[in-house]
Amino acid sequence: MARPLPQDVKHVVSIGGGPIGAGWAAHFLARGYDVTGYLHAMPEEAVYRKILDTAWLSLEQLGLAEGASRERLRLTDNLEDAVRTADFVQESAPERLDLKQALYAKLGTLVPEGVVISSSTSGFMMTDIQMLCPTPERTVIGHPFNPPYLLPLVEIIGGKKTSPDAVEWARDFYAHAGKAPLVMKKEIPGFVATRLQEAIWREALHMVANGEATPEDIDIALMNGPAPRLAIQGQCMAFHVACGEGGMATNLDQFGPALKLPWTRLQAPELTKELRDRMVDGCDAIAAGRHFEEMAAERDRAIVGILKAVKAARAGGV
Amino acid sequence: MARPLPQDVKHVVSIGGGPIGAGWAAHFLARGYDVTGYLHAMPEEAVYRKILDTAWLSLEQLGLAEGASRERLRLTDNLEDAVRTADFVQESAPERLDLKQALYAKLGTLVPEGVVISSSTSGFMMTDIQMLCPTPERTVIGHPFNPPYLLPLVEIIGGKKTSPDAVEWARDFYAHAGKAPLVMKKEIPGFVATRLQEAIWREALHMVANGEATPEDIDIALMNGPAPRLAIQGQCMAFHVACGEGGMATNLDQFGPALKLPWTRLQAPELTKELRDRMVDGCDAIAAGRHFEEMAAERDRAIVGILKAVKAARAGGV
Repeated sequence: MARPLPQDVKHVVSIGGGPIGAGWAAHFLARGYDVTGYLHAMPEEAVYRKILDTAWLSLEQLGLAEGASRERLRLTDNLEDAVRTADFVQESAPERLDLKQALYAKLGTLVPEGVVISSSTSGFMMTDIQMLCPTPERTVIGHPFNPPYLLPLVEIIGGKKTSPDAVEWARDFYAHAGKAPLVMKKEIPGFVATRLQEAIWREALHMVANGEATPEDIDIALMNGPAPRLAIQGQCMAFHVACGEGGMATNLDQFGPALKLPWTRLQAPELTKELRDRMVDGCDAIAAGRHFEEMAAERDRAIVGILKAVKAARAGGV
Repeated sequence: MARPLPQDVKHVVSIGGGPIGAGWAAHFLARGYDVTGYLHAMPEEAVYRKILDTAWLSLEQLGLAEGASRERLRLTDNLEDAVRTADFVQESAPERLDLKQALYAKLGTLVPEGVVISSSTSGFMMTDIQMLCPTPERTVIGHPFNPPYLLPLVEIIGGKKTSPDAVEWARDFYAHAGKAPLVMKKEIPGFVATRLQEAIWREALHMVANGEATPEDIDIALMNGPAPRLAIQGQCMAFHVACGEGGMATNLDQFGPALKLPWTRLQAPELTKELRDRMVDGCDAIAAGRHFEEMAAERDRAIVGILKAVKAARAGGV
């Protein structure tokens, strides 16, 4: 079949003329791929190129791959022509299930055999999207975070008819292409990152609804409190490192009872022995033997840089 | 009374020998204050100075105030001596209510009249802490985020007996001292930032409990997805700017129904007209007339710097 090795991909097709489709095109161009952008209609080109130019400013700052060039973008409104020689397809069509199902019915035949087709969808499950696709085994979800040309996360999961090797291939390809792939364990609405973000968002809406905080209060709290730390240590490692020698075990054994307090409107799960052990073992796995002082020092160095970066951006610099 | 103007504070007293007390001392020294650290017992000094030295590495990188020096720290285990000439007291004693109540009973007499006493407590309300204090009107909560020498947020709120001018004074003083003060609207457990963080944490625990994600998955998702963006735009402005011309109004009117979807286990509040308007007006207030494209460009510049800072910190540099 025509599926290349993940590291041998040369030609990426980005389907969709909106900010996500154009953002993906920018990312893949910056990583040195030949990119074909499929637009629903060519008049979308002007806006598309504007998004690309905006993204390029940041991508240049982060460092382009050798040979990377915006000249290596081809735009077309002919779907068959777009995907004929694709090594990989990233689909970012509008978020309508009927539209996506019809699109995958066509792509299933047009895209070379075995080549992976990955959907940027944030709202649907691949099991539903691949319903009418004649070759569903190579279709996956590869959900980015906005803006897709900057934030590294891609959440990957297949549908019921997806072959596991397509999921593995997508993970390896995204990693090779400079992304941070996360293969999900189960098809759940909102994946991992959006669920966590939605938890923040709902708690924020509750606070505003109850007159406990304004939107500005919410944002001040996030930007100056948890966020700079979360960019270098996720919530699990932030607690693990903050608890010093005892790590996550201390955090759960000592502060576990606080889960019963009315902090947030979200009921906490029962802190069973099994959950405790999963959390502790998981943090130990991430730490991989590093001492908490080393990780705390790394955290501090990163926060210094993050605070400087935010300040510089607000002042108009890079 | 002895309360100076916020900008005239010269001598700050930091009570507590743990990471929060020592972290506050480091912050105030770096901002050029004379600092007295009160320790429960002098043998705590070695660990205290180690925390200070670690913090100093980062504080030097962020830039010290003129005249700032670690030489301007005095340590003592004599409470009366420590606070006799205080212009401001930051209390970070252990998190036990009976202990704090007894401490404030003493501080209420020992600290010069009118001088503001601010508690770092994360778990108690000032209404309870100030119960036995003979001069409760000048006691407030000034809750930092760990590490307190780096993360700018300080959440401020008084208790039932606190005078509003003590809260205002604390806000002005923290701002002058290089912090990002947030005066809370109501005494609620967890303040604003910790509630939002707890919402993430509980959703994460649910996912791990259900086998939907590992701790490592949670952290990868946060670090590579929402966090770098939240450091420059809180969740409200992140959505406002992502929706382009339509902003928060589009976000709520178009995606509001998605609040009913099972994203997170936290039930969303009813999206009333009033809540909608508060969110929209709040985002307009933060934007202060700036066009979304300007804010998106600022976001991108910041994320570039944040990603570089994280990468450099992981590689061992600053």
